[in-house]
Amino acid sequence: MIKAGIIGGAGYTGLELIRLLLMHPEVEISVVTSRRYKGEKISDVNPHLEPFIELEYEDVDTKEIADRSDVVFVAVPHGSAMDYVPELIARGARVIDLSADYRLKKDEYERIYKREHKDKHKEERRAVYGLTELHPEVADADLVANPGCYPTGAILAVAPLVKEGGGGVKQVIFDAKSGISGAGVEPSETSHFPNLAENIIPYQVTAHRHVAEMRMELGVKVSFTPHVIPSIRGILTTAHVFLAEGTKTHHAIERAYKQFYEGKRFIRLRKGIPSLSAVRGTNFCDIWFEIEEKSNRIVVISAIDNLVKGGSGQAIQNMNVMFGLNEGEGLWFPGLVP
Amino acid sequence: MIKAGIIGGAGYTGLELIRLLLMHPEVEISVVTSRRYKGEKISDVNPHLEPFIELEYEDVDTKEIADRSDVVFVAVPHGSAMDYVPELIARGARVIDLSADYRLKKDEYERIYKREHKDKHKEERRAVYGLTELHPEVADADLVANPGCYPTGAILAVAPLVKEGGGGVKQVIFDAKSGISGAGVEPSETSHFPNLAENIIPYQVTAHRHVAEMRMELGVKVSFTPHVIPSIRGILTTAHVFLAEGTKTHHAIERAYKQFYEGKRFIRLRKGIPSLSAVRGTNFCDIWFEIEEKSNRIVVISAIDNLVKGGSGQAIQNMNVMFGLNEGEGLWFPGLVP
Amino acid sequence: MIKAGIIGGAGYTGLELIRLLLMHPEVEISVVTSRRYKGEKISDVNPHLEPFIELEYEDVDTKEIADRSDVVFVAVPHGSAMDYVPELIARGARVIDLSADYRLKKDEYERIYKREHKDKHKEERRAVYGLTELHPEVADADLVANPGCYPTGAILAVAPLVKEGGGGVKQVIFDAKSGISGAGVEPSETSHFPNLAENIIPYQVTAHRHVAEMRMELGVKVSFTPHVIPSIRGILTTAHVFLAEGTKTHHAIERAYKQFYEGKRFIRLRKGIPSLSAVRGTNFCDIWFEIEEKSNRIVVISAIDNLVKGGSGQAIQNMNVMFGLNEGEGLWFPGLVP
Amino acid sequence: MIKAGIIGGAGYTGLELIRLLLMHPEVEISVVTSRRYKGEKISDVNPHLEPFIELEYEDVDTKEIADRSDVVFVAVPHGSAMDYVPELIARGARVIDLSADYRLKKDEYERIYKREHKDKHKEERRAVYGLTELHPEVADADLVANPGCYPTGAILAVAPLVKEGGGGVKQVIFDAKSGISGAGVEPSETSHFPNLAENIIPYQVTAHRHVAEMRMELGVKVSFTPHVIPSIRGILTTAHVFLAEGTKTHHAIERAYKQFYEGKRFIRLRKGIPSLSAVRGTNFCDIWFEIEEKSNRIVVISAIDNLVKGGSGQAIQNMNVMFGLNEGEGLWFPGLVP
Repeated sequence: MIKAGIIGGAGYTGLELIRLLLMHPEVEISVVTSRRYKGEKISDVNPHLEPFIELEYEDVDTKEIADRSDVVFVAVPHGSAMDYVPELIARGARVIDLSADYRLKKDEYERIYKREHKDKHKEERRAVYGLTELHPEVADADLVANPGCYPTGAILAVAPLVKEGGGGVKQVIFDAKSGISGAGVEPSETSHFPNLAENIIPYQVTAHRHVAEMRMELGVKVSFTPHVIPSIRGILTTAHVFLAEGTKTHHAIERAYKQFYEGKRFIRLRKGIPSLSAVRGTNFCDIWFEIEEKSNRIVVISAIDNLVKGGSGQAIQNMNVMFGLNEGEGLWFPGLVP
Repeated sequence: MIKAGIIGGAGYTGLELIRLLLMHPEVEISVVTSRRYKGEKISDVNPHLEPFIELEYEDVDTKEIADRSDVVFVAVPHGSAMDYVPELIARGARVIDLSADYRLKKDEYERIYKREHKDKHKEERRAVYGLTELHPEVADADLVANPGCYPTGAILAVAPLVKEGGGGVKQVIFDAKSGISGAGVEPSETSHFPNLAENIIPYQVTAHRHVAEMRMELGVKVSFTPHVIPSIRGILTTAHVFLAEGTKTHHAIERAYKQFYEGKRFIRLRKGIPSLSAVRGTNFCDIWFEIEEKSNRIVVISAIDNLVKGGSGQAIQNMNVMFGLNEGEGLWFPGLVP
Repeated sequence: MIKAGIIGGAGYTGLELIRLLLMHPEVEISVVTSRRYKGEKISDVNPHLEPFIELEYEDVDTKEIADRSDVVFVAVPHGSAMDYVPELIARGARVIDLSADYRLKKDEYERIYKREHKDKHKEERRAVYGLTELHPEVADADLVANPGCYPTGAILAVAPLVKEGGGGVKQVIFDAKSGISGAGVEPSETSHFPNLAENIIPYQVTAHRHVAEMRMELGVKVSFTPHVIPSIRGILTTAHVFLAEGTKTHHAIERAYKQFYEGKRFIRLRKGIPSLSAVRGTNFCDIWFEIEEKSNRIVVISAIDNLVKGGSGQAIQNMNVMFGLNEGEGLWFPGLVP
Repeated sequence: MIKAGIIGGAGYTGLELIRLLLMHPEVEISVVTSRRYKGEKISDVNPHLEPFIELEYEDVDTKEIADRSDVVFVAVPHGSAMDYVPELIARGARVIDLSADYRLKKDEYERIYKREHKDKHKEERRAVYGLTELHPEVADADLVANPGCYPTGAILAVAPLVKEGGGGVKQVIFDAKSGISGAGVEPSETSHFPNLAENIIPYQVTAHRHVAEMRMELGVKVSFTPHVIPSIRGILTTAHVFLAEGTKTHHAIERAYKQFYEGKRFIRLRKGIPSLSAVRGTNFCDIWFEIEEKSNRIVVISAIDNLVKGGSGQAIQNMNVMFGLNEGEGLWFPGLVP
């Protein structure tokens, strides 16, 4: 059994790790921390976990967590993960960081997140960007930087066009629509029901930080505009892709996607328009595209569950790969429909 | 033109007063207060009011408000209204208090709200309970205690049975379902979208304070259990009414309702089951009932918009009556369907 | 491996059976029927099941289904199940019928459902009412009549009071709130988004057919009023219970519940008010109660997922018991929160 | 008083015309037709209109409608309006057609809507495209082709850039998000609550017919991808605008918008991101933009109520202009917030 620790187990990401790991046949949760709830039984704070977990929330003691865990999931806000990661690794734990702290190069990070990166050995750690389908080198990583929710849906949507196409993609506009759970467990103006219901809320329409990950992975000109929709889970990404050299045939593009995602179990290339329902609660990324007639635009739609493939599920998928398990272990079930 | 002041104009009740008074042909809003937003333009804080109101929020200066207003709507939390009402009245303003402070007798208030009533002349003021259809004496009142949202829907639903029936009602259980706007403008655990969407939240299931108003007005044995539903507006009240002496005929009950509400424009006796949609944004209370076969139970359903008939609309209806206007002035429009 | 057939696999009940059985370690789905979709691949019609099931929908051939299955789940509309059940049993399959056809005594059925019961041997079959917690005799049954969704939530909520209390319960009013998935997969006026969103829809407020099951199981005076809420899944039942002989202590009632549900894994007696979220996608029934001060009313709240504990999950729980498996096999996972 | 007839008064567009015209001080509804409900009282079919309208639905008798009306709103499906319009005009009524039948040139119409245009004099009628802010010639029109809901939000969002900018706009991608009421009053797979709730549904992602109106009015390269969100009303349009010649300053663009919409009462240029709530139930179009740093992309966001500014409200605005009334007559009220 893999012993898994979770730092930050009271937010949505942490709770989703718990929910999924409880169903994982090869994992035992060894420790879960929460500063706010330390000493309280996890299932008292989160009644849906009753009676699946007996543990109490603990305070963060990096040393002890490393000692008690084979893998540690770090599910704390951006800027805090770097406080824990160095010591966790120093003490021999393999780490999957769900924050943004190790996704970008140091200078890019500092520019985008407008703060100094406190980990002096940041660059040497060679964190692997954990978009599992694109980075098989996750298998050997000691530190995986789990992708952001938006980048996961966006990058997977167009990677085959960019990577296979040989420079054919000129520009991509990602217009993304996310459920509100992406904004976290704390009540806010945006998550206030009367503000969000019967509404859709665009935000950071030209300047969301996740765009840096998209650019890093795709290497093409990317624009990104996110919106919050009145739903709990899910990200639907509408990718408006402009090709450099005229329209390709539907058949050619389909083949590119099929080849690129050959053997990738969690990518489902769809015959019809994807739906958030079909991925609800799952680690799947559903993808579909349509070519605009007499134009060089392709519209690619991807659908993920932001908390699973866009977060905790992908983290576990990475863990599976890191520990030589079947990639789908503990994650292989259909979505909650309806 | 009636000059109307609003104390507490940044909460949902205050904003709804503004929205409705702006459409009222006989009213001019003279002053609106907000401690939080004083000095800010009302339509900057609330863009939906642009360009309908030029005023800024002011700090509360009771004296000045009274001087500048014929009527003052007090839309502050329970326990605060009594700080303003005495001076407003002393300076000659007529007052419509939307809080609970003047609805109950002093001792009942202190018992239920677990605080001392600071207004020394509370009982002498003879505040009229502003359920307009039941209290025509509103016309002569200087102080109207506007009813709670739940009591409005509940009392109107069964008053004809209780009042006309001659003691025939033995017991009533009000099982009420409210939109979340009743909980106010501040984000909270309950109003957090991921908590409320795809859910329904019962609360204070045996001990909600509004039951005191229902008992006061109806004079029969009343139980009350409220729930919050994943909707913004509206209260649907399911009244389970038990008659003392066997079933009455549908016809007799229908006649009782018709007689009781004769000439009451905002009560719509329905042929089919009421819906929150049909009252959305309006001052109507829709009512319908069904007799349970071979039983002494009658189910009465009422639907109101909690912020209009259950709050600010009824306050304006009371103002209309107090100032000798047509009861429906400024409130006579159909609901927002769909 | 248990070979399980499903008659009626394109409705929500059938699809939920498929979703859950696919995760069941001891079951293999042998055949799934749908008149409408026969010949089509199940995962083409329902993309969320891709790539979990390779089968196509078949036409209904009772003989063949019985031959290929150890257990057959009948998930067709009321009135149709009785067309299939006799032959299935005659050919040796054990049957779990999710319709109402075998829940009530023949004459009661005919009175309530206003149709003749076509199975001539209906009464001899001794169908067991499959409320698993109350009917351990499910273990030996050849025919289980799986309870209705509303009765499941209602009966479980108050059974300890009725059964343990020794006649102490005088009357119960069940005011139930259901997600719209209970109304099925076909679009209708009620399920039309603009009609249901921002609304709550009471229906059959004194005359819903499910009340017959409640009366049969509880043996006390029962009233039942259902409502549809703007949610997909879940039934929250507010039981207003009137005791015959004054108030019992909280402690005594709690003890009654604990004793009654001792060892029943899917019943969670809660410390706080239940929520639909905590049972979303699961087979749990969460229960909580509060005593009304100075009254003989107890409010009991139960929460279930209407498609799982209120339908397909309970059917599988029954299957587990029938086949000597652990009751929770394939059903033992936490809810989808948030 | 203007006598207004409505052909097609049982769909959402027709009902919204009724709701708004009932509040219009200069209009009297003279006749409302519905083939389905002819002979039924309008307020029986639509209880929210009780007691505001005494009329019954009538069958369509073009001649009689023209005789009884100064203006006729045609709110029937595309392809049917052309059956009525010629005779209405021939008999002297002024016509506002809310269908697509008179928006495009004949050949364009036939190509896009894949049907023959049956009105032999289509082109001679010189229907004015009723985007009121852009077409003051509405004032003299006998036939106004009221714009589609999507084109209204899209064109208003970028018209100042296109028209004032002198050819500076290279390309626009409209990514639009609409409430489901745009799909009409009939239940469908898309409007089925379990399909739409917790979801967002893209459709016709490269080939929606409304794009033709956008191209006609804007004269630049336009792509359009619509989505349905789980809301009743509203269209939020995210316009990704690419400028030909580098970035303009925020100030310059702001000035262009202000000049272009000078005196246009229903256009609100916003300081913050628009919200569907603020336009709910109103005829406003709220607009806001942000320039992407180091790019030639501008993101413009517009918000309208699809049934009001995107349909019936704009139709009435056009009527006001046609009859020499104040443009805002009957439409000048704030949105339903919350």
